[in-house]
Amino acid sequence: MMNDVELKERIRNIPDFPKKGIVFRDITTLLKDGKAFGGVVDMLAEHFKSKNIDVVVAAESRGFIFGAAIANALHIGFVPVRKPGKLPHKTIKETYELEYGSDSLEIHEDGIEKGSKVLIVDDLLATGGTTKAAVKLVERLGGKVAGIAFVIELSFLHGRDKLRDYDVFSLVKYDSE
Amino acid sequence: MMNDVELKERIRNIPDFPKKGIVFRDITTLLKDGKAFGGVVDMLAEHFKSKNIDVVVAAESRGFIFGAAIANALHIGFVPVRKPGKLPHKTIKETYELEYGSDSLEIHEDGIEKGSKVLIVDDLLATGGTTKAAVKLVERLGGKVAGIAFVIELSFLHGRDKLRDYDVFSLVKYDSE
Repeated sequence: MMNDVELKERIRNIPDFPKKGIVFRDITTLLKDGKAFGGVVDMLAEHFKSKNIDVVVAAESRGFIFGAAIANALHIGFVPVRKPGKLPHKTIKETYELEYGSDSLEIHEDGIEKGSKVLIVDDLLATGGTTKAAVKLVERLGGKVAGIAFVIELSFLHGRDKLRDYDVFSLVKYDSE
Repeated sequence: MMNDVELKERIRNIPDFPKKGIVFRDITTLLKDGKAFGGVVDMLAEHFKSKNIDVVVAAESRGFIFGAAIANALHIGFVPVRKPGKLPHKTIKETYELEYGSDSLEIHEDGIEKGSKVLIVDDLLATGGTTKAAVKLVERLGGKVAGIAFVIELSFLHGRDKLRDYDVFSLVKYDSE
């Protein structure tokens, strides 16, 4: 198992992306290292193993990478949450605020069975807006959010406060930009 | 292991999506069935196991789902191919033709090591334009395309003709709309 320092060594810091003043945490350097990628998937899957999760939910696009691999590691299904218009069947939608403007996410209305235990997965917890929208979509369909897994948590943005009713677990924390 | 008929039972047909006359093959019904999703990943990984693949490459967004899970099953790394502007480091780009207009894909220029054996993964082979762009990106970086894996092949669109120099493998074939 890799510790926080070893994982951080595999995450590339990109200053001023996508805009000035932001340090982007680039996980592509971690992903291309099979041992690191597999280690991250195993650690997140292991943490939630005892919870008898029925299905993993993740939002496009980077969320799909870890969400799908974790679902497979847990031998359970995967349900995608997507931008409007991308899912072909009947959907429900949640709109959430961004720094400037708003964005929306959709899930198939038959994506989650009532009462099923859901693990929400994403690569990064920033302000928590996207994840909170995914939580709402799952709950509106009668699913129970049994856990929320992140690879990276930008703890200085306090996204965890938006998710305080849930079992939130992240592997790597950054305390400042 | 599931056969063609069992897999097709888990793929939902959506008439007239994204536009009139097209039958969309919806894999979300397969994905949410853990046994089917795991079976597809295992069958594709198993087929290419003996080729000593170094890394999986897949294009966003649905390609990420199968690509990441297969990379994990093979204990190797994953390299994303994305729409322009999404990857934060230095990239190279390929533009390809669509029915109307064109589209582009990028890969990090340090994504593939020279001489490494690459498995390209996508959910669907239609006309093959996206996959051909991914092949070119990998080869421009000095990678060797050791195989191309699809869940679904729309064989009536003859996408395989664009990829005839490669080891192309798909699990489910549709011979007409």
